Amino acid sequence: MYTAEIITVGDEILIGQIIDTNSAWMANQLNLAGVKVNKITSISDNAEEIKTALSKAENNADIVLVTGGLGPTNDDITKKVLAEYFGSTRMVVHEPSLRFIETRFAKRGIAMNSLNRQQAEVPDCCTVIPNNHGTAPGMWFEKGKTIFVSMPGVPSEMMKMLPDILDLLKQKVVLPKIFHKTMMTYGISESELAEKIEIWENSLPEKIALAYLPNIETGVKLRLTSYAYDEKQIIEEQFNKLTAILGKYIYGYEPDTLESVSGKLLLKERATVATAESCTGGRIAHRITSIPGSSAYFKGGIIAYSNEIKAKALGVNPADIEKFGAVSSEVALQMAEGACRMLNTDYAVSTTGVAGPTGGTVDKPVGLCWFGIATPNGTKTFSHNFIGDRQENIAAASSVALNILRLHILSGL
Amino acid sequence: MYTAEIITVGDEILIGQIIDTNSAWMANQLNLAGVKVNKITSISDNAEEIKTALSKAENNADIVLVTGGLGPTNDDITKKVLAEYFGSTRMVVHEPSLRFIETRFAKRGIAMNSLNRQQAEVPDCCTVIPNNHGTAPGMWFEKGKTIFVSMPGVPSEMMKMLPDILDLLKQKVVLPKIFHKTMMTYGISESELAEKIEIWENSLPEKIALAYLPNIETGVKLRLTSYAYDEKQIIEEQFNKLTAILGKYIYGYEPDTLESVSGKLLLKERATVATAESCTGGRIAHRITSIPGSSAYFKGGIIAYSNEIKAKALGVNPADIEKFGAVSSEVALQMAEGACRMLNTDYAVSTTGVAGPTGGTVDKPVGLCWFGIATPNGTKTFSHNFIGDRQENIAAASSVALNILRLHILSGL
Repeated sequence: MYTAEIITVGDEILIGQIIDTNSAWMANQLNLAGVKVNKITSISDNAEEIKTALSKAENNADIVLVTGGLGPTNDDITKKVLAEYFGSTRMVVHEPSLRFIETRFAKRGIAMNSLNRQQAEVPDCCTVIPNNHGTAPGMWFEKGKTIFVSMPGVPSEMMKMLPDILDLLKQKVVLPKIFHKTMMTYGISESELAEKIEIWENSLPEKIALAYLPNIETGVKLRLTSYAYDEKQIIEEQFNKLTAILGKYIYGYEPDTLESVSGKLLLKERATVATAESCTGGRIAHRITSIPGSSAYFKGGIIAYSNEIKAKALGVNPADIEKFGAVSSEVALQMAEGACRMLNTDYAVSTTGVAGPTGGTVDKPVGLCWFGIATPNGTKTFSHNFIGDRQENIAAASSVALNILRLHILSGL
Repeated sequence: MYTAEIITVGDEILIGQIIDTNSAWMANQLNLAGVKVNKITSISDNAEEIKTALSKAENNADIVLVTGGLGPTNDDITKKVLAEYFGSTRMVVHEPSLRFIETRFAKRGIAMNSLNRQQAEVPDCCTVIPNNHGTAPGMWFEKGKTIFVSMPGVPSEMMKMLPDILDLLKQKVVLPKIFHKTMMTYGISESELAEKIEIWENSLPEKIALAYLPNIETGVKLRLTSYAYDEKQIIEEQFNKLTAILGKYIYGYEPDTLESVSGKLLLKERATVATAESCTGGRIAHRITSIPGSSAYFKGGIIAYSNEIKAKALGVNPADIEKFGAVSSEVALQMAEGACRMLNTDYAVSTTGVAGPTGGTVDKPVGLCWFGIATPNGTKTFSHNFIGDRQENIAAASSVALNILRLHILSGL
């Protein structure tokens, strides 16, 4: 495999002020191009640290991508350190970059100073990668068998420069194809999954790697990776086998979500949905409406936090709230039916539970949630016991509700 | 300075499937505790790579935080590698962790398998850091002068474990005192702020550092940091000066949020609120109900995505929707008044806008949003033009609505 290391330079990452989104984006692009990323390192704007990182990477990767530290101010030292590291004897002005910077400043009507002009200077031993979206040019160095590329840390500038770098790389080396595909499951835990698919997993071809990626909101993702050009087909075959084992636990493939998949099913059925939320407090509706075009199937929802609203806006019988409690199968059922009726939709999902941290009783502990699902064929209820904190319980309950909706549209029940 | 390195283990970071948010959070927490982070490294689930990273970190940092690779499945090997690295002769069952895992499974009514039971096993040479929010316990090792701590990669579990680790660390070593306090502002941009507080900023004492932290949902945070034990008082004085300059742009200090502050104001007034959301689709209600105890002031909300629901559930006049359009001051006003009336509350906020990416017109472009606020003293409307993508517009609009609510409760208008 052709391998890469990513080095991000900048104190703001090490003090936790910014999240390093650049590395994930670069890693993904490299993977798609057939380059395996061995390591990602974040270091500070310090000459010794930068040199040490370059030297370690030189022995461990075929290409090293360095971002950050190319700004005009004194704290940005990456260019100077690169010049030293690669034994450059002098800095030269890269004329096209200088002209680009001049034009940029002229357009904005700002005067250039010497710091801005220095942005166009590069070590004499590098090949310049033009930056058409900022003032710091990219720099390509070669040392021994290793290629080093320095890019600005500004995400939009880096993101527009990397494709040019990958094009250059493909002119120099032949890259293999890496293929990833990720299956989305819901309603089954990581360990239950592992048990259920153990035989399948043990019979996976050698060059196919499996990863389990659990998440409270999306469920467990199963990612298969192949490192050979012609194995896309093999991965598809493996997922077909998994589909036979896991059935309706599977709701799609990345980037599908429970809300996007439910939305597609509703669109296909030309059906509409409403929500009646108590403990989830709007989270289900928020997820449904985060999908562009959801107005085609989502008519609206009632957030019935108080018992008064459960009765008034959803028609839940106050005597039943009194008798069974707000967190009960009866109330969940009447909430879902009420939402269908009041908002005139084909489907409705409801939640009523104890999100926590307080409000639990022996009978109705924190984490208990009742769900209702109203469909053209009737109404059902389900209960779950969640064991997270308030935010986790709300997130998990919204996923369970969306999954119940998905399963009921699918099954036609 | 006491120094740290962070090592995150997991192929999903190196293939760019997930963004490493854990490291930024840990780095921030370490900084707040007076620990300087030298380096952040992401490596794959590979025994040799993990050992190499541990060995390099051992020479470069006083404490090494390792996250990830502790799941029950075969691809997670961190625990095994740690046992080897620290020369553990055997794995032992940590009884409290086993009981915790058993209780967890019992609560959820799921059968445990051997993989789940193995989660409670740890190398005999480590101190266990209990995980009260998941199945993989944390592990504390010491080798030479270096402390190593292994934590799960699941962000919610790691985030709840790190404070315990920092408490343990403070029992072992004396960390310098860093004092941070962060003021929360909303409704003013970073550059407007910078201009307004320029004179104040230039007169800051030398040992006090200011950082601007803009965020679409929370507004611009202003963090003051002092690196001396006795400067808490000086920071308070500086914030008092800022309060005189910025007035109602300030809504609190971290960890206050627009929803928590509005909630406190409502509690104090013994007043209630309802929401009437169109384009924000439940996000405002979700934020309000994310606050524990919000049922004391939040009665509920109507998500009126379709015009039919705006009329039926909120009493908006269909003729006005026809005449002015759903995205209009008139409709926002009637939605807020309708929510107050239907849900019988003192206050209500409403939104109706074009979240995007489609649905915009010349008159009503993507990003336009109308807000209504109904109070005991009348109803007003406001409009904003947001310039983000769908998710950003929804997030920003929910913050504007909550800020409008806050300002109206505050002013009594």
